[in-house]
Amino acid sequence: MKNVLCGRCVKCGKEYEATANLTNCECGGILDIIYDYDYIKTVLTKEKLAERDDRSMWRYRELLPIEDTTCNTPLRVGWSPLYEADRLAEELGLGKLYVKDDGQNPTASLKDRASAMAVAKAKEAGAKVIACSSTGNAASSLAGNAAAAGLKTYIFVPSRAPKGKVAQLMTFGATVVSVQGSYEDTFELSKAAIDKWGWYNRNAAINPYLSEGKKTVGLEIAEQLGWKMPDYIAISVGDGCTIAGLWKGLKDLYAIGFIDKLPRLISAQAEGCCPLNRAIATGEEWYPMEENTLADSIAVGVPRNATKALDAIRESKGIVVNVSDAEIMAAQKLLGRTCGVFGEPAGVTGTAGIKKLCEQGILGKNDTVVSVVTGNGLKDVANAIAACGEPISIPSDMELLLKAFAEKGIEVEN
Amino acid sequence: MKNVLCGRCVKCGKEYEATANLTNCECGGILDIIYDYDYIKTVLTKEKLAERDDRSMWRYRELLPIEDTTCNTPLRVGWSPLYEADRLAEELGLGKLYVKDDGQNPTASLKDRASAMAVAKAKEAGAKVIACSSTGNAASSLAGNAAAAGLKTYIFVPSRAPKGKVAQLMTFGATVVSVQGSYEDTFELSKAAIDKWGWYNRNAAINPYLSEGKKTVGLEIAEQLGWKMPDYIAISVGDGCTIAGLWKGLKDLYAIGFIDKLPRLISAQAEGCCPLNRAIATGEEWYPMEENTLADSIAVGVPRNATKALDAIRESKGIVVNVSDAEIMAAQKLLGRTCGVFGEPAGVTGTAGIKKLCEQGILGKNDTVVSVVTGNGLKDVANAIAACGEPISIPSDMELLLKAFAEKGIEVEN
Repeated sequence: MKNVLCGRCVKCGKEYEATANLTNCECGGILDIIYDYDYIKTVLTKEKLAERDDRSMWRYRELLPIEDTTCNTPLRVGWSPLYEADRLAEELGLGKLYVKDDGQNPTASLKDRASAMAVAKAKEAGAKVIACSSTGNAASSLAGNAAAAGLKTYIFVPSRAPKGKVAQLMTFGATVVSVQGSYEDTFELSKAAIDKWGWYNRNAAINPYLSEGKKTVGLEIAEQLGWKMPDYIAISVGDGCTIAGLWKGLKDLYAIGFIDKLPRLISAQAEGCCPLNRAIATGEEWYPMEENTLADSIAVGVPRNATKALDAIRESKGIVVNVSDAEIMAAQKLLGRTCGVFGEPAGVTGTAGIKKLCEQGILGKNDTVVSVVTGNGLKDVANAIAACGEPISIPSDMELLLKAFAEKGIEVEN
Repeated sequence: MKNVLCGRCVKCGKEYEATANLTNCECGGILDIIYDYDYIKTVLTKEKLAERDDRSMWRYRELLPIEDTTCNTPLRVGWSPLYEADRLAEELGLGKLYVKDDGQNPTASLKDRASAMAVAKAKEAGAKVIACSSTGNAASSLAGNAAAAGLKTYIFVPSRAPKGKVAQLMTFGATVVSVQGSYEDTFELSKAAIDKWGWYNRNAAINPYLSEGKKTVGLEIAEQLGWKMPDYIAISVGDGCTIAGLWKGLKDLYAIGFIDKLPRLISAQAEGCCPLNRAIATGEEWYPMEENTLADSIAVGVPRNATKALDAIRESKGIVVNVSDAEIMAAQKLLGRTCGVFGEPAGVTGTAGIKKLCEQGILGKNDTVVSVVTGNGLKDVANAIAACGEPISIPSDMELLLKAFAEKGIEVEN
C-alpha cells in the first residue's frame, strides 16, 4: 500500500508493518493506521473526486488502507444521503441541521462500512472465514457483506440482540452463537474461538482497519457539504470505534488540505451506559458501567476502543451528552415526523443529544450541526411499537371511523 | 408539462387533461399517462443522462409527469443497486443473473418510487393531506415521503400488516387506521374516507401517476446495464401496479430509442393468491381469489390494476409462475446466503419464480435475467425468523461452544 506507512499503537507508539491481518499491539493497545499524506496529496484532488462515478465508500480508495489490486466489495456500502432538516432545525432552534441517514446501507447500519473493509482485508489475507462478536449491527453487516463476497462467517451476539438483527444473520447464512450474557461475555467467547480456529478477526478495537472503513462517513459528510465543515457532528457512542473512525476521516481531510476547519464532536451516550462520557465529564479514567439502556447497539459497559474514542472527543474539543431512554424514543418519533427518517434507538441517540443541548442553550441559532443516524429503525421494531403506540383498529365501517376519530380527538384536515 | 400529452383510459380510450389530481376515467378504467416522445427525444439523450449527478429517480425528469418547476422530493428515492449475482446464477444454472435490490430505498421498498411521485403531484395540486390504503409498503413509503415534505397522511392498512411496517407508519407521524378485514375491505374504507374529506389520493390504480414513479425501476435497470436489455425481468405481482410500471418504463425507453429490445416479463405470484397469473394461464378473465400467502405485500385477492398488469405481461410475451410460501421462504435464504441481500417474502417472490423456472428447464444457460427485490426483509422479521430457525444459544463457555457445534454437526472451518 503506497499510501500507508504503518500501524502505530495508540498507547505505546510501537509501529508495525501494515499487513492484512494486523491485530493489537503486544502491549494490548489498538493500532492506528498511519498514512503518507504527502503521497496522497499527489494522487487525490477534490476535482478528481468530483468526477468519480463511484457512489460508495470505495470512491475514497486513496485514503483507505487497501492494495491497488483489491476489488471493491460487492454490496453498495456508503454514500448514504445527507438531508437538510430545516423543519427540525427550526423546531429545535438550531441555525442549520443536516441528517446523515446511515440506516441507508445494505444491511441498514453504519457498520457496513467497517464490515466491507473487513471483507476487503480478509480477501487480501487469503482468509475464507471471518468472525466477530457484536451487539448486532456489526454482526449482521459482516454476515451480509461476507455472504456477498463468498466468505463464511461465525458470529457471536448477546442474547438481548433484537430479532431483526438475528433474522438478518440467519438469512445471510452465518453460523450464529447467541451468548447468554453481556456484550463483554460475548466478546470473550468470540475471542477464545477466534484464537482457537484462527478465523479472520473482525472484532472492533482489535482489527485496526475497521475504523478506517467507518471514517468514510466523515469523508462523505465533508464532500456532501462541499467541503464546508459544520460546527458540530453528533453521533452515538458505544464501543468507541465509530466516533473514533469519524474523527480519523475528518483529520485525514484536514491533513491533505481538503477542509480548513475541524468540527467539534458531540458524543451522545445513554444515561444508563455512558462510561466514556463519564470519563470526559469527570476528567478521570474510564471504568466499566452496567448496560442499562434499550439502545442495544450502544449498550457497551466495557468499551473496547476507549482510548481512540476519548482522544477523538478531547482533540475535537467535543461535547458529551447523556440521554434517557425516554429521550431516545422521543427523538425517534421526532426524526420520523419531521424528516421521514426512521432510526433505531442507538441510531437516533445523537439526535436526542442535540435536542437536549438545544434545550440547555448549549446549541442554538448560530450553530450548524450534522446528526449521524447510525442504524435503521426496522432493526428493532419492538421498541418502536412500544414508543409509538398502536394504530386505530376497527372493521371497515365509516361510522366506526368517525367514532374512532372523535374518541381520539383527531380533527380531520382536508 | 411539455412532455405529457394527456391521461388516456386503458379501457375506453377517453382522454383527459393531465391535471395534478387526476383519478380514474368516468367508465371506471384507470388512466395511462401518454407522453410526447418526439419532444422528449429533443431534450433527453443518453449522453446527457450519463453526465447527470442526480442519483435518484428524479434523474429521469424528462420522462416523468411533473412540472419543470416541481422540486425533487426530499428523501433519496431510487437508484438502488443492481448486483451481478454470479454465484447464484451458477447455482441455478442461469447464464447471467442480476439482482436489483429495491429494499435499498428510504423506507425500504420499491413503493417509495410511487409515493415520492404522489408527494410531488400532491404539492402541485396544493394539497396538504395525502391518504391511501395499502398492504403496508405503499403506506409506510407514503408516510415517510410525506413527512419529509411536510404533508399530513391518513393511512389504512389491513390488520395483518407486519409490525415493521406499522412501526414505520406510527414513527412517521401518520394517522393510521388498522382495518379488521381483507385488503379489499381496507381499500373500500379508505375510498369512502377520501371521498368524504377530499384528501389527495395515493391509492394505487386510481392515481395514474403512481405507475409513472414505479417505472423508474425499469429506467434504472436499463441504464445500469448500459442499455443492453436482459432476456427477462422477474418481479412479484400483487395489485398489478408495479409490473405495469416496470413495463411502462421499458416501453418509454424503447419509444425514445434508448433500447432496441424489450425483455420478457416474469410475473411471480403466490400459489395462494394468483388471480392475475391464473387469468394469463387460462386465457380467461381474472376473478377474485382468497389471500392465502404469508407474502403480505402481494396478498391481493382483488387486484386494482388488473388491466394494465395483464396488458404488460401479454405485450411482453411474459411468463407467469406461481410459488408456494415454502418456495418463497427458501428463496429468501438463498438470496441472503449467496448475495447478501435480505428481501421480504413478497420481495423475493420473483427470485423464487426464477428458481422454479430454472428447475422446470424454462430458463437456463442461455438466459440473462434480472430479479427485482421489491422490499427489505427487515419489514417482516417474524416470517424470516420462522423460516431460518433460531441461533445456537449458550452461556459464554468454550466447552459448551464445542459441544453445540458437535451436536449441530457443524464442521468448523478455518
